[in-house]
Amino acid sequence: MDQTALDNLLQPKTVAVVGASAQPGKIGYTVIENLLEGGYNGKIYPINPTATEILGLKVFPTIADVPGKVDLAVITVPVKFVAQVSKECGEKGIKALSVITSGFSEVGRKDLEDELVDIAHQYGMCVLGPNIVGTLSNSDKLNASFAPFLPFPGKATLITQSGALLIAMDAITYTRKVGFDKMISIGNMADVDFADLITWLDKDDNTSCICLYIEGFKDGRKFIEASRNTKKPIIALKAGVSAHGAAAAASHTGSLAGAVKVYGAAFQQAGVVQASDLNNLFDRTLALSLQPPLRKENLLVITNGGGVGVLATDAAERFGVPLHFAPQDVQDELKKHMPEFGSAKNPVDLTGMAGNDWYYKSVKFAYAHLWTDGLAVLYCETAMTNPVEIAQAIKKAIEETGITDKPVVVSMVGGTRCDEAMQWLVEHGIPAYTAPDKAMNGMAALREYNNIRQSINGTNEAKIPGSAKKAHEIIAKARGEGRTALTEIEAKKLFASYGLPVTEINLAKSEEEAVSLAHETGFPIVMKVVSPDIIHKSDAGGVKVNIKDEAGVRSTYQTILANCKAYNANADIRGVAVQEMAPLGTEVIIGSINDPTFGPTVMFGLGGIFVEVLKDVIFRVAPVTKGQAEQMINEIRSVAILAGARGEAPRDRAALADLVCSYAAMIYDLRDEVAETDANPVLVYEEGKGLKVVDARIILKKK
Amino acid sequence: MDQTALDNLLQPKTVAVVGASAQPGKIGYTVIENLLEGGYNGKIYPINPTATEILGLKVFPTIADVPGKVDLAVITVPVKFVAQVSKECGEKGIKALSVITSGFSEVGRKDLEDELVDIAHQYGMCVLGPNIVGTLSNSDKLNASFAPFLPFPGKATLITQSGALLIAMDAITYTRKVGFDKMISIGNMADVDFADLITWLDKDDNTSCICLYIEGFKDGRKFIEASRNTKKPIIALKAGVSAHGAAAAASHTGSLAGAVKVYGAAFQQAGVVQASDLNNLFDRTLALSLQPPLRKENLLVITNGGGVGVLATDAAERFGVPLHFAPQDVQDELKKHMPEFGSAKNPVDLTGMAGNDWYYKSVKFAYAHLWTDGLAVLYCETAMTNPVEIAQAIKKAIEETGITDKPVVVSMVGGTRCDEAMQWLVEHGIPAYTAPDKAMNGMAALREYNNIRQSINGTNEAKIPGSAKKAHEIIAKARGEGRTALTEIEAKKLFASYGLPVTEINLAKSEEEAVSLAHETGFPIVMKVVSPDIIHKSDAGGVKVNIKDEAGVRSTYQTILANCKAYNANADIRGVAVQEMAPLGTEVIIGSINDPTFGPTVMFGLGGIFVEVLKDVIFRVAPVTKGQAEQMINEIRSVAILAGARGEAPRDRAALADLVCSYAAMIYDLRDEVAETDANPVLVYEEGKGLKVVDARIILKKK
Repeated sequence: MDQTALDNLLQPKTVAVVGASAQPGKIGYTVIENLLEGGYNGKIYPINPTATEILGLKVFPTIADVPGKVDLAVITVPVKFVAQVSKECGEKGIKALSVITSGFSEVGRKDLEDELVDIAHQYGMCVLGPNIVGTLSNSDKLNASFAPFLPFPGKATLITQSGALLIAMDAITYTRKVGFDKMISIGNMADVDFADLITWLDKDDNTSCICLYIEGFKDGRKFIEASRNTKKPIIALKAGVSAHGAAAAASHTGSLAGAVKVYGAAFQQAGVVQASDLNNLFDRTLALSLQPPLRKENLLVITNGGGVGVLATDAAERFGVPLHFAPQDVQDELKKHMPEFGSAKNPVDLTGMAGNDWYYKSVKFAYAHLWTDGLAVLYCETAMTNPVEIAQAIKKAIEETGITDKPVVVSMVGGTRCDEAMQWLVEHGIPAYTAPDKAMNGMAALREYNNIRQSINGTNEAKIPGSAKKAHEIIAKARGEGRTALTEIEAKKLFASYGLPVTEINLAKSEEEAVSLAHETGFPIVMKVVSPDIIHKSDAGGVKVNIKDEAGVRSTYQTILANCKAYNANADIRGVAVQEMAPLGTEVIIGSINDPTFGPTVMFGLGGIFVEVLKDVIFRVAPVTKGQAEQMINEIRSVAILAGARGEAPRDRAALADLVCSYAAMIYDLRDEVAETDANPVLVYEEGKGLKVVDARIILKKK
Repeated sequence: MDQTALDNLLQPKTVAVVGASAQPGKIGYTVIENLLEGGYNGKIYPINPTATEILGLKVFPTIADVPGKVDLAVITVPVKFVAQVSKECGEKGIKALSVITSGFSEVGRKDLEDELVDIAHQYGMCVLGPNIVGTLSNSDKLNASFAPFLPFPGKATLITQSGALLIAMDAITYTRKVGFDKMISIGNMADVDFADLITWLDKDDNTSCICLYIEGFKDGRKFIEASRNTKKPIIALKAGVSAHGAAAAASHTGSLAGAVKVYGAAFQQAGVVQASDLNNLFDRTLALSLQPPLRKENLLVITNGGGVGVLATDAAERFGVPLHFAPQDVQDELKKHMPEFGSAKNPVDLTGMAGNDWYYKSVKFAYAHLWTDGLAVLYCETAMTNPVEIAQAIKKAIEETGITDKPVVVSMVGGTRCDEAMQWLVEHGIPAYTAPDKAMNGMAALREYNNIRQSINGTNEAKIPGSAKKAHEIIAKARGEGRTALTEIEAKKLFASYGLPVTEINLAKSEEEAVSLAHETGFPIVMKVVSPDIIHKSDAGGVKVNIKDEAGVRSTYQTILANCKAYNANADIRGVAVQEMAPLGTEVIIGSINDPTFGPTVMFGLGGIFVEVLKDVIFRVAPVTKGQAEQMINEIRSVAILAGARGEAPRDRAALADLVCSYAAMIYDLRDEVAETDANPVLVYEEGKGLKVVDARIILKKK
């Protein structure tokens, strides 16, 4: 995306409103009115073929009539005129269109949207929308939208796929006193998408945090790439996470909702912090836009009320923020600023007797202490204290330490005086919340942001030279035979070419060949029918394990053939595979899908009941780093099994992480060919003893 | 608890303030000031030995000097005078003391608290506190506390163990416009406890919902009993649910925090709805105090914005509220009140074009329809509509149906106009929320309340005549031998006396006896050492399974003796148990503890890794009804295993529920004797084939 085009879109020096109207109530009137009321300093050109003046501004019949350069054209004409006026904008040399007009893909007219984008690209223009509310920017005093006013000022920028929510959130900023610098309605994303805006906002001095409301999008890879490369915190609320909700989102935006678990994985990999609902989004955005990340884990909580202290502690556990007791020297010092019955542990309870001075001294000492990595200051309204003074004492204490790289959050539980104090704190850069759990949620976001950014460092070089060539040969052969399912032998060869440790397997076309292969492999062995027509080999009596000698091989060969012919008389039986029998180990499963939004995506879980009954599986978009592979393994609920449950030795998790990396590299390499795969089971042995892929399945994309 | 004493405490016609002060800033002054400012209509008697007038009221030197009857004495004197003034109150014939004074068990002076209660009981007085803020009641215009003002009026009553939170929440009611009729600070609960107040509030016409902030209490059974017998919804926020938080709560209140899981189970059994944090408590209280329960599951969502519709749907799933598409006739009618691109499914999306009329007609039709069991109406602020008018249209539509037994909640996302509209709705009995997920949370509380009340109906008659007598004989024998651990044989006999199906087990004191018992039992059998000195029988080589014939019995008998002597030469070996070998089945575990707050408590889970690694277990306070036993089984995360995972037939869940019932009845019966027990494993067979308790363990209380 051309950055100059985006500069014109988001920081225009001149704006034309194509479809401007002299009639109050019309969107073409509202946009002009909003530009004026917002205090926009640039030139505004209303375009309308019949009117001569709108709200005191001179009207031009067509865009061609405007003298001089126009940076941005806001288009509000009916849908049938959009193509024509876009051409005229292109001819005029405009680089950015903000298309408020609706009636495109959201009502099934994708063709009109494609036409619009084609025209725009012919002239080197970018298109925001169509079907949007517009753009709002406090720092540019620009309200180029039909939302009624610029938001309460703040340091975050919101990009939203729901225009209705933009208007509602715009109003909410004034009641919550949590603001935005910019609010951007992204609409149908025919051209400019989340990734483009994220990249541009990363360089915007007025945006410290990027806040996303997402219903669904198409190019997941581009989103991940742009987000990873951003230096600023990004927080996303993904709507449509329920089965019912995903359906509603799809019908609403016309875009694919995508599997929820895959979106969650992609946010992780993109370094994007998540919010679960609107309040959560506001609470987390406030912290991320004002405070540095929580880099280590010593969070100290200072409170004047045992009750809110306990609630904060409960919330910390719920949000995964660990709390530790402060070291003795910290406790000794803090003990000086509280009565006998206070507590200097963590939470530090100054008690209801705490006034400005105790808060000031405790906060200053604790915040400056080397042990402390972050601070949560809680206050419960009392009759004897003034919340505004407490807020000022907290701010003064923080400021005087000169420290700026440790996060601090505040919660004040009480009435209007607390609200006033909290607004003052936010204005002075300290996030403040009406409840202790909200403050803890803000701190949790700062912690997650730190951890998530660390986890995406690292490389994913798991490639073996020549792998892809071998794999494509195997695939070409299957395609040559008109197949999209590889046989187990082919799949294992393909896996092996990427360095995955598979059980040795070879095709015997006769009893004699089976005997000879069995001797080569070494007893005991497993024998399995090989037939493209028999998918469920066990059901057909086509699998026998633990065959210990030559006689067993001979009788099994005949039994399997007989069983399979009885099961399906017309099956194309190509022989019997002779396979190394892997020692017993802990069963895990690795698989992949080709997600419509994010492409090749790897899945990991424990085998058996864990995957079948508990659905305890973790996804990541391929490829993955070693760190991400380790994270996947640690995220399954049943991870304790791998740590060595019930007296067993710990399993070889290092080998497992390597396997996940290589597997992800493989499916990424083969993303244009492979639809889905699995290695199930993989048997994992104790530490240092590796693992074995026992069964393999690869389904190719239909071409 | 004497109800007249509580009447005097909570609805006094005359109040004496013992420790009244003429000095502003003193609590004894503040209470007088608050009583006057709150507009209390009864008589106020300040008691102070030196002052003559306080705030225009005549002061009496002692309580004895007051002419006529005094209902309530609020005590604010220093702790050292409390016993003396309490006696004087008793002599005066007062029935209720509200002891604001602190310095009792919360600082380690339990003795002073006991003395206070002893005095009170001698005179038939009840004591609220000590260490409290006081009591506040809007309907009585009574602010007998040092909290600065009566709360914003509402229909719920709050009882809180944290005085600091009471003061803060009092202030919050004005910013949130969510009020209370009464706020009661319960303090150290030396006498009047949650159960007493719940029972009294059940008859209070001004309380429609009882809201609890709980840190911990002692008599769990009394709480459950009182809550179960209440006709009004009760909602509880239990603080101190984290390990760290439980410690903080314990130090804060001096009462036992109790195991979090057991509190959760007890709330279920008490019919108490839970809240996870302060906001949650407010949101759920609002719905429970204004609306009837959601009795069935057809919840319809009507919205003017796809975005908030999707967020509501996501929240519904998160809170366990199912959403179904509306039937065709409902969709057909609703389609009339929306544009072409709207949706009449569920959520019903009237689109941003929806004005008062569409809201009015859709809500009226949908709410009146037989299909609909509950309604959530969402509104996202638009430039074209007036939230107050939308609110009025919704209220009018609801009212005109004449229906009052279906719940309705509203969410309005937007600015100050929305806040105003929502306040109007709340004043008119309809809970309204700033975000769709909050409205859904309110509806979820109404649904949980319905379900939880239904689940506690039913009886728990699982007793077999004579069980207790047999059990006490077995226990007496063990105690006679100075033991607190029963042998497996004793434990199984005890279980069997309560009708639990145990594997047959008998003690053989010789090889010959073992052979004869084996023949009686029938092969195959299991043999286990019997010795009070060998706890871990397998480790000692004291257990052998699947013994198939007489020769096996003989050799095993000798082997076990030899192994165990080698393991512990000094062990008192009483012989070898000969046990029926149960067929393989699905392993479950049932056990019990004697919780310090709730007493005998039963635990259920799947065996093996599920209990050991996943900690997937459910608790209930004994005894339990059949319905509760079924609920326990359904609450384990791995319940699919019992439904017949991986091609197995479904397990006999009816037999399992019976077992849990009988087990709970047993431990309740034996609550004075038994400390902890388990049946591990219990093998469960397919439906109709029952189950077997394979191993049994009973530890007696130390006496």
